[in-house]
Amino acid sequence: MIIDIHGHYTTEPAALGLFRDRQLAGLADAARRPSPGSLKISDEELIESVQPQIKKQQERGGDLTIFSPRASGMAHHVGSADISAVWTSVCNDLIHRVCTLLPQNFAPVGQLPQFPGRAPSECIPELRRIVEELGFVGVNLNPDPSGGHWSGEPITDRSWYPLYEVMCELDVPAMIHVSSSCNHNFHATGAHYINADTTAFMQLIQGDLFKDFPTLKFVIPHGGGAVPYHWGRYRGLAQELKRPLLAEHLLGNVFFDTCVYHLPGMELLAKVIPTDNILFASEMLGAVKGIDPETGHHYDDTKRYIDALAFLDAEQRYKIFEGNARRVYPRLDRRLSARAADSAA
Amino acid sequence: MIIDIHGHYTTEPAALGLFRDRQLAGLADAARRPSPGSLKISDEELIESVQPQIKKQQERGGDLTIFSPRASGMAHHVGSADISAVWTSVCNDLIHRVCTLLPQNFAPVGQLPQFPGRAPSECIPELRRIVEELGFVGVNLNPDPSGGHWSGEPITDRSWYPLYEVMCELDVPAMIHVSSSCNHNFHATGAHYINADTTAFMQLIQGDLFKDFPTLKFVIPHGGGAVPYHWGRYRGLAQELKRPLLAEHLLGNVFFDTCVYHLPGMELLAKVIPTDNILFASEMLGAVKGIDPETGHHYDDTKRYIDALAFLDAEQRYKIFEGNARRVYPRLDRRLSARAADSAA
Repeated sequence: MIIDIHGHYTTEPAALGLFRDRQLAGLADAARRPSPGSLKISDEELIESVQPQIKKQQERGGDLTIFSPRASGMAHHVGSADISAVWTSVCNDLIHRVCTLLPQNFAPVGQLPQFPGRAPSECIPELRRIVEELGFVGVNLNPDPSGGHWSGEPITDRSWYPLYEVMCELDVPAMIHVSSSCNHNFHATGAHYINADTTAFMQLIQGDLFKDFPTLKFVIPHGGGAVPYHWGRYRGLAQELKRPLLAEHLLGNVFFDTCVYHLPGMELLAKVIPTDNILFASEMLGAVKGIDPETGHHYDDTKRYIDALAFLDAEQRYKIFEGNARRVYPRLDRRLSARAADSAA
Repeated sequence: MIIDIHGHYTTEPAALGLFRDRQLAGLADAARRPSPGSLKISDEELIESVQPQIKKQQERGGDLTIFSPRASGMAHHVGSADISAVWTSVCNDLIHRVCTLLPQNFAPVGQLPQFPGRAPSECIPELRRIVEELGFVGVNLNPDPSGGHWSGEPITDRSWYPLYEVMCELDVPAMIHVSSSCNHNFHATGAHYINADTTAFMQLIQGDLFKDFPTLKFVIPHGGGAVPYHWGRYRGLAQELKRPLLAEHLLGNVFFDTCVYHLPGMELLAKVIPTDNILFASEMLGAVKGIDPETGHHYDDTKRYIDALAFLDAEQRYKIFEGNARRVYPRLDRRLSARAADSAA
């Protein structure tokens, strides 16, 4: 099967945006603040809202998308810690409902109620809730909850450790994914996202996180930011910093998705990064939705680029499209195995 | 000839570092502040100090290096605007002396006396001095003088325009190059440099700078940050933002160097970016000085990677190694032509 590990709910019903407006209006006028229960979206509306994703998934030969709230929508820097917490649970609940209604198409990944300056450990109750109660298979972790000011601590800092302990206990990976940028130097999808991917990887080179958490797993999206293109630089910097070879230091725990929107980029990724560390993804419907005039196909139809790489054998393709995802997201694997057992019974 | 457009003076005599210490000590105790004239470095010491660069230049088949002050040493965010101005002229004067002593090996590029929150126009007197009086062929322009806090304006902002007007008048390009990072999220050479390259390019996509300055030229170093690897993403984002095709929108004015430290990365760069926009560079002795255990050669011996690209023909090689540099740096071209005329006479 073909598992796309990086899809966001970017086609939410309008009611969610109106709820968010009232939530933020509530900062200025508490009387306007809505109760979470006031958000009414029917199952039919939810199913209808993800038809564009399902259509593209099927047209492109995909089977299952790991589905999480809109990345730019997390906006951890907006409002207050309380606002962020309510907003997070509302968004996660919608993901839960979509994935429960359409379990053949979607598996749930959640956002965390991060807030600038607040301890990552404050996210633990929501992490436990979505994994233990709602069956989520992973989380998105924002390495810069300040939204482009980078005022917090590197992801190797000990302040993150309590969260990592619970991630390891629950056996869920995190995709390292920033949200929108409130720094006008950084375009969100054109600079902030890619910079964050690069920054996180370099923080991991400098640190020794996986000595402390040998089973912790991170997925770096958008093809790993600049990292595979500068793989020689990163190998050389690790060497200068007296770190082990990257294969030993990081590649047991760090994985890259395939959200690279042209063939030469995908070719580089697949040449440079070991197959075991590459997970199929498209971020559809996401950052780049247009049609490439050079190919006549959608930029984000990433399966086409992988299909075009003649040097990949069948086993490598299986790993990229399915095997690695089942290994990195063990709860997804169990979910799929249970489903297969159910249909066999 | 082989022109390396990206070399920094990273082997400065110890006296320069001591001068800097006293200069910064002068912030706490004005009595310790040195006069610029107190820095004494002899011509012999200068010549001796750049022998490592000359040795590597010759071993690797290079002829001339465009030479500028140490990038991390610019540290525009440190001290005060006055400190930054004195430090800049001291560093530029040393570059001038090295390039005057060894004109066969080096051509001068300068740093600017930028400071967070200060208008770029304050850099104009030093820009005029180094180009008009000292014969510099270009400048390094720091898109984030705050050193990793990105507290200033995008490079497309009108506050930069007075500086660009003078750059166009003088016909000098700028390399967009940040300095050290005082944000502990960003390793300087592993994250801040690469992020800045990516960020600057995306700012240029969003803006319309070259409509206002059709002759302005920017070199984006480190192989363009993440840009060539994500060329599909950038073409797609330009399309979504209703910008012209990147070839029309930016490629008449924006160039990438070849500081990419492994063969697959260089291959991608040369495949994706038009040859007219690629300028040979190594940043030697710079960010990554070690030997790659996978090849037995230095990571930053970038000429080897280009030599290995069988798909480049002789004309393309000429452009990458010499022709593009002479076009992008017209004052370098004139300098070389004058030198050739002198030796012929």
